[in-house]
Amino acid sequence: MSKLWDKGYALDKLIEEFTVGEDPLLDQRLVAADCIASMAHAKMLAKIEILTPEEYGALRKELSAIVRLNRDGRFPIRREDEDCHTAIENRLIQTVGEAGKKIHTGRSRNDQVIAALRLYTRSFLLEFQEAALNLVQVLHAFAEKNKDLPMPGRTHLQVAMPSSIGLWAGAWVEELLDDLNLVDTAYALNNSCPLGSAASYGVPLPLDREMVAESLAFDRVQNNVLYVNNSRGKFESIVLDAVEQAVLTVSKLAQDLILFSLPEFGYFRLPDELFAGSSIMPQKKNPCMLELMRAKAATLSSCSAQVKSIIRALPSGYNRDFQETKAPFLRGLDLALITVRVMQAVIEKLAPDTERLRAGFTPDIYATDRALELVARGMPFREAYRAVGTDLGALEQGDPDQAIRRRGYTGTTGNLGLELAAKQLEQRREQLASRRRGIDAKLEALAGMAVSLHG
Amino acid sequence: MSKLWDKGYALDKLIEEFTVGEDPLLDQRLVAADCIASMAHAKMLAKIEILTPEEYGALRKELSAIVRLNRDGRFPIRREDEDCHTAIENRLIQTVGEAGKKIHTGRSRNDQVIAALRLYTRSFLLEFQEAALNLVQVLHAFAEKNKDLPMPGRTHLQVAMPSSIGLWAGAWVEELLDDLNLVDTAYALNNSCPLGSAASYGVPLPLDREMVAESLAFDRVQNNVLYVNNSRGKFESIVLDAVEQAVLTVSKLAQDLILFSLPEFGYFRLPDELFAGSSIMPQKKNPCMLELMRAKAATLSSCSAQVKSIIRALPSGYNRDFQETKAPFLRGLDLALITVRVMQAVIEKLAPDTERLRAGFTPDIYATDRALELVARGMPFREAYRAVGTDLGALEQGDPDQAIRRRGYTGTTGNLGLELAAKQLEQRREQLASRRRGIDAKLEALAGMAVSLHG
Amino acid sequence: MSKLWDKGYALDKLIEEFTVGEDPLLDQRLVAADCIASMAHAKMLAKIEILTPEEYGALRKELSAIVRLNRDGRFPIRREDEDCHTAIENRLIQTVGEAGKKIHTGRSRNDQVIAALRLYTRSFLLEFQEAALNLVQVLHAFAEKNKDLPMPGRTHLQVAMPSSIGLWAGAWVEELLDDLNLVDTAYALNNSCPLGSAASYGVPLPLDREMVAESLAFDRVQNNVLYVNNSRGKFESIVLDAVEQAVLTVSKLAQDLILFSLPEFGYFRLPDELFAGSSIMPQKKNPCMLELMRAKAATLSSCSAQVKSIIRALPSGYNRDFQETKAPFLRGLDLALITVRVMQAVIEKLAPDTERLRAGFTPDIYATDRALELVARGMPFREAYRAVGTDLGALEQGDPDQAIRRRGYTGTTGNLGLELAAKQLEQRREQLASRRRGIDAKLEALAGMAVSLHG
Amino acid sequence: MSKLWDKGYALDKLIEEFTVGEDPLLDQRLVAADCIASMAHAKMLAKIEILTPEEYGALRKELSAIVRLNRDGRFPIRREDEDCHTAIENRLIQTVGEAGKKIHTGRSRNDQVIAALRLYTRSFLLEFQEAALNLVQVLHAFAEKNKDLPMPGRTHLQVAMPSSIGLWAGAWVEELLDDLNLVDTAYALNNSCPLGSAASYGVPLPLDREMVAESLAFDRVQNNVLYVNNSRGKFESIVLDAVEQAVLTVSKLAQDLILFSLPEFGYFRLPDELFAGSSIMPQKKNPCMLELMRAKAATLSSCSAQVKSIIRALPSGYNRDFQETKAPFLRGLDLALITVRVMQAVIEKLAPDTERLRAGFTPDIYATDRALELVARGMPFREAYRAVGTDLGALEQGDPDQAIRRRGYTGTTGNLGLELAAKQLEQRREQLASRRRGIDAKLEALAGMAVSLHG
Repeated sequence: MSKLWDKGYALDKLIEEFTVGEDPLLDQRLVAADCIASMAHAKMLAKIEILTPEEYGALRKELSAIVRLNRDGRFPIRREDEDCHTAIENRLIQTVGEAGKKIHTGRSRNDQVIAALRLYTRSFLLEFQEAALNLVQVLHAFAEKNKDLPMPGRTHLQVAMPSSIGLWAGAWVEELLDDLNLVDTAYALNNSCPLGSAASYGVPLPLDREMVAESLAFDRVQNNVLYVNNSRGKFESIVLDAVEQAVLTVSKLAQDLILFSLPEFGYFRLPDELFAGSSIMPQKKNPCMLELMRAKAATLSSCSAQVKSIIRALPSGYNRDFQETKAPFLRGLDLALITVRVMQAVIEKLAPDTERLRAGFTPDIYATDRALELVARGMPFREAYRAVGTDLGALEQGDPDQAIRRRGYTGTTGNLGLELAAKQLEQRREQLASRRRGIDAKLEALAGMAVSLHG
Repeated sequence: MSKLWDKGYALDKLIEEFTVGEDPLLDQRLVAADCIASMAHAKMLAKIEILTPEEYGALRKELSAIVRLNRDGRFPIRREDEDCHTAIENRLIQTVGEAGKKIHTGRSRNDQVIAALRLYTRSFLLEFQEAALNLVQVLHAFAEKNKDLPMPGRTHLQVAMPSSIGLWAGAWVEELLDDLNLVDTAYALNNSCPLGSAASYGVPLPLDREMVAESLAFDRVQNNVLYVNNSRGKFESIVLDAVEQAVLTVSKLAQDLILFSLPEFGYFRLPDELFAGSSIMPQKKNPCMLELMRAKAATLSSCSAQVKSIIRALPSGYNRDFQETKAPFLRGLDLALITVRVMQAVIEKLAPDTERLRAGFTPDIYATDRALELVARGMPFREAYRAVGTDLGALEQGDPDQAIRRRGYTGTTGNLGLELAAKQLEQRREQLASRRRGIDAKLEALAGMAVSLHG
Repeated sequence: MSKLWDKGYALDKLIEEFTVGEDPLLDQRLVAADCIASMAHAKMLAKIEILTPEEYGALRKELSAIVRLNRDGRFPIRREDEDCHTAIENRLIQTVGEAGKKIHTGRSRNDQVIAALRLYTRSFLLEFQEAALNLVQVLHAFAEKNKDLPMPGRTHLQVAMPSSIGLWAGAWVEELLDDLNLVDTAYALNNSCPLGSAASYGVPLPLDREMVAESLAFDRVQNNVLYVNNSRGKFESIVLDAVEQAVLTVSKLAQDLILFSLPEFGYFRLPDELFAGSSIMPQKKNPCMLELMRAKAATLSSCSAQVKSIIRALPSGYNRDFQETKAPFLRGLDLALITVRVMQAVIEKLAPDTERLRAGFTPDIYATDRALELVARGMPFREAYRAVGTDLGALEQGDPDQAIRRRGYTGTTGNLGLELAAKQLEQRREQLASRRRGIDAKLEALAGMAVSLHG
Repeated sequence: MSKLWDKGYALDKLIEEFTVGEDPLLDQRLVAADCIASMAHAKMLAKIEILTPEEYGALRKELSAIVRLNRDGRFPIRREDEDCHTAIENRLIQTVGEAGKKIHTGRSRNDQVIAALRLYTRSFLLEFQEAALNLVQVLHAFAEKNKDLPMPGRTHLQVAMPSSIGLWAGAWVEELLDDLNLVDTAYALNNSCPLGSAASYGVPLPLDREMVAESLAFDRVQNNVLYVNNSRGKFESIVLDAVEQAVLTVSKLAQDLILFSLPEFGYFRLPDELFAGSSIMPQKKNPCMLELMRAKAATLSSCSAQVKSIIRALPSGYNRDFQETKAPFLRGLDLALITVRVMQAVIEKLAPDTERLRAGFTPDIYATDRALELVARGMPFREAYRAVGTDLGALEQGDPDQAIRRRGYTGTTGNLGLELAAKQLEQRREQLASRRRGIDAKLEALAGMAVSLHG
């Protein structure tokens, strides 16, 4: 007997392959989270006297053992087990006996899945925040170090106005910090406890949802039990949309690096180890990881769109369609995290080429400054604009350093405000550390051991 | 001379149609926002003495006149004007003369577009929040009124467990309230002032960005001027993603209503005026607006996906690709707002059919309750589950009212927690009113008249 | 009486706005097609004696009048009319009387919509093919004219191997010709007659579908009447997917032109009239139409994805969701056509810069050729590759012309095969002309006048 | 030394994970195709005397050995090998020596990837056609068997007009047959030989592309070598779009089956083995595989959208972004094939419930028929429509069998035209068998053994 819902009839292999899909593989990463959630559920069942203290103790011990087995890659999920939840229950029945047959009292696989995903996602989001802050930090350091280094400012990819490395790098810093606001909102929504929803409609038992939420360090109980199931896919798409923004930011930064490190521009240099060769052309150094960032941003967008498309217009309550959201969700999370980490590695090794950057200041870059000089002498801007535009040949070579110093108001090359970002970065670091401490302490108390739920 | 950038060469009509696109039409709704932003910019130019007080006064007066013309549908944007920004500047030059030629000092069309969109979006988001709260309120009232009315709970669209109208309606209430958290985050990001960014790189003039932000009731200056332009499309996609979640919620509610108001279920009745007929079949009453909610949720998803796809991997600084984000953005906002409003109209007229709802309680709905009775007598759940499952014919008709009362813990039919949602609703109402008061006061001070920036 | 399905109850304005949507505007372009389809339907009704010959004559005359009014922009569709089909029937009843009340016998609005869309789409696809062939022709001429002009071949955007303008331009030619295969398939599917399906289930009348199909120059009757309605949205998405490929091709060509016309590359020059200026920077010449091609390709992709998302998992038979496919469909068609036409205008004016193209041949471009010289002397390729790779400094400047001549096998710079494409182009031109002649003759016979169904 | 492009510097593990990605896993299925393509390339190198006959013989023998190892799951691709192409070349160098170092002469990894994908895809498309034809066949048999069994026709999911199982099932038959037209077009485009393109620009060697194409049973050489590389991703998206239409068809059929097998409708019965149970509710029989068909159709749409989004606006020539298209492509193919197969299994076991189908004929289903009776007596349709609509209570119960017989023209219940579909089915079977024979014969001649390239 391997499946919870097996009632004796033979299931066609094809149907099994179709309905089980990638779950046995994907669920490897949910094993620890499901064990922890099961401990909290069992602890609560003991409190309401459905389990004896001894039964709870035995289950907790065995669940800890499974966490360790999984950590060592020794808890396989067989295709016949369908998913980690069945595999774990089957093992508990096998090793603990009677208590194993009781642990599913008052819960359904659906809310197990949701609980495990929330715990996993919470852990992921903390790691993602750390990775994003690390990227912010190296970009900020790059901005600080080269803050007054002139760089041609471009629009439409064409030379536009005087700019600086400080402005360019600072822009990414601020964008990523803003992106983290979305991650915050997703984190807060995700950090609510679904357990007790059972199959969407609760059960006629005196479950203590607050106790379970507290054990698992959730910030709140997600109240309405039907809403719990209706939020499957929704929360996943919210998390994906949030991390997607950071990856979209990275995709644009990657595009700048691809273009501006071409010999034709030469603004940046990257070390050889960040390039890949060609199988046929001996001379090639290809910025493959930067190209893949562009492409992976598209992949991530499709993950989120897929999840939304699956849940759209579904009837309320659990539907199996939700299962199909697991793969794009987990795949999207992986991709977001590694993309941000690889970009950090790139920025750490990025070097500006001072000479080429200055050489990019051709006379036409000063056209607007010239028009504003005419304005200073009293000519209305629109006339000054025309005067300069009809005699572009008269533009002279200017001084890049002076040009970027002359922009002095908030947020411009002469007044970058990098200290504001530094402060935000520090505050976020502290918040992150505080969140981790609180969660780790509660989970360790529950499990009697330190537990890592992501990665 | 009609275009700012016209340097005298003839532009092929085809190129014009291609590059101008829908802007003259779409920009009708941005006229007021651009005028207000222009007033704030002009006020600041006066402070830094690029405009005389008289020039500023004349510009402000004429900008107010344009706002009124636009409100009355009498400010056409000609195709040759390309967009509202050029149309407004051209008119200012025509009517105010010299000062009109000065107003563009220190700004570019790009940051004008961004500023107008931010103001328009802020106004939209306040209206959207109100509409969503109205929907929450009618759903909440429906839940309260019918809170103990039994309703078959379904999963996989099949009868699952005893539930109630209160649980069903309360689920949508809580989901929509959660959706508004995303709207909050989008609102906060959007409420930052882009002006002063010029063409992405600022200008060598002592612009006072803080003053402009304050005049326009923005919460903050968006610091880095390059980031301002890099955030074009990004903020639009964040806003779309936020309102999309509410529309996804509505799409699922619509699906429930389509199905459960079918004669075969009969749980709900809707009045005739909410149905449409057929051109050929005299008897038809079709729930067209509910079907369109399903479909429009797909449209909204595609709006957001389109915007993200356009901005992905663009080089930094302004690129014309951004223009293509305007149509899906504005279209998506319209669609989100009307969808929520129509659902409110539907729920206001929704009536449950008590008899059909009770008739849906077939004996199998009590299967889990029966298993838990066996658990209460000491049988482990997994064995009780099997015992019931192998003798389904033995299940007896139960009492729906008793069944839903027996679920008594947090968030279940006997303990809905509707008062928690009521409190959230009230707090959100207050926050919304307070935001509106603050903004209206500042904009009225700036414009010398009450101004409506959306709709 | 303004709506066919109006049964006397007042419809809330909100519901009307929501359900009618953009139809009155979008349907302007379907008026002629609906009139033509109505003529064919009426002709058949006359044959089966539901209409008298006089009634048919009167209807045909009035339908012709509507076609002319619409052509002159004088057939408004009022919001109360909802769509063109109701507007036309209402007018027929008004002007022709009794016969107007008979014309809807044996048809429903659904199959009217489908019929009008098929006729419009057929006409569109013929225009699109012509536009694509025009683009192929100018690219082919560009390839021929510059076929032996050396151009650095790039991979990963980095210099890779010797190439030529002929190879570069010829690649787009062949890609676009392949894209037209998809258009062919879409054309063939679309060219089947839906009329007679009524509301998805036919009617108990002896309709002659073959006669209607023949009158309208359809290649075949779409047999199963339920399938007719199930194919709504499907055929639209197939058409969009087909034209999307051509636009994706154009988007990549646009990217090449944006990059390679930058001063840093300088391979191509475009005349001033194809550039747009900046509102603030007097010197700017921005390739806006090329940037918009990139962006509009994303828009087109979202149109197709939207349609598929709307129809996915709908129950069979007509559902109102289908209405929501009309806007993305028509918008996508417009966009595809103008994008191809604008690219033709660009290529007509494109000029290569011989000097800059040759200057792009830096010594490293010959690395592979050098390795193959070592191979010719007997060294295994993998060793030759390493030998060159470890001594890149030894590479010498080569002769671009010689390098591209040395590639002589099928499809390479020395053997472009442009004549194959020329032949395909000619065959497609002939097929297109033949299709048009056949259709025009039949429609003129039906309407007694030449009719344009698209544009 | 494990990577072709390894020039001695240490590559950071992170970059490796990021750039290699899923390739070692995904490439398992391309091993056989790459070996076959390598045989054809080697055979041609022998003809142009870059390899000796002995070297070619040794390579062919070893490549055959790899095909067999891979078939038995004994050809691992190590992460350090990056992909199957490097793994195979490394092994050849190891086992065959000198000749192994020569096999890469005149080709690049890019065109190897394209060639392997084309061969794999061709094989897949033949299997997909077979699976789709099998589904058509069981649907056709179901239609034939129940062709005159009355079934309520629905629009907007509401009862509309008399219909039959024959019409309902025949609609899916015709839709799937039409879907196969897209597969044909994709097949034809895919069946062209890319080899010889090298790194997009050919090589200065006298390669014989026609010989390679002939050996591999390709219909033609894809001429322009740059176009070969530009078509990466394009052909994948065309194939995905094609199979997606069939899966969209299946998704709608699945929705009908989910709804119409609910107890509330009861039109269809499915055997227990096609349902899944619940982990908590003993009574549940959930149609999980039908729900997953809905969801997987969304997944497939996102695969195609992802590929298009990745390739959009890329510069010409190979870019590493292309690599990211491999996973969604292969995943989409798998999903399309299994979905069609599972639906076949479902239809094979589907049983109509005659009694419930007839019971669905409520009096209002005859409303249109009644109006047309009034038309037969001379009343204009629009008046008859109103007469019936204002007195719906007067409608009487009719005779379902008579009602469906009375529809007698092309494509209606009394004239289904199932024989037309049967004929198409037969022709497609023959075409498929003929294609397979031709390909198998050529590949067996090349490899000296029968080779399976897909699955």
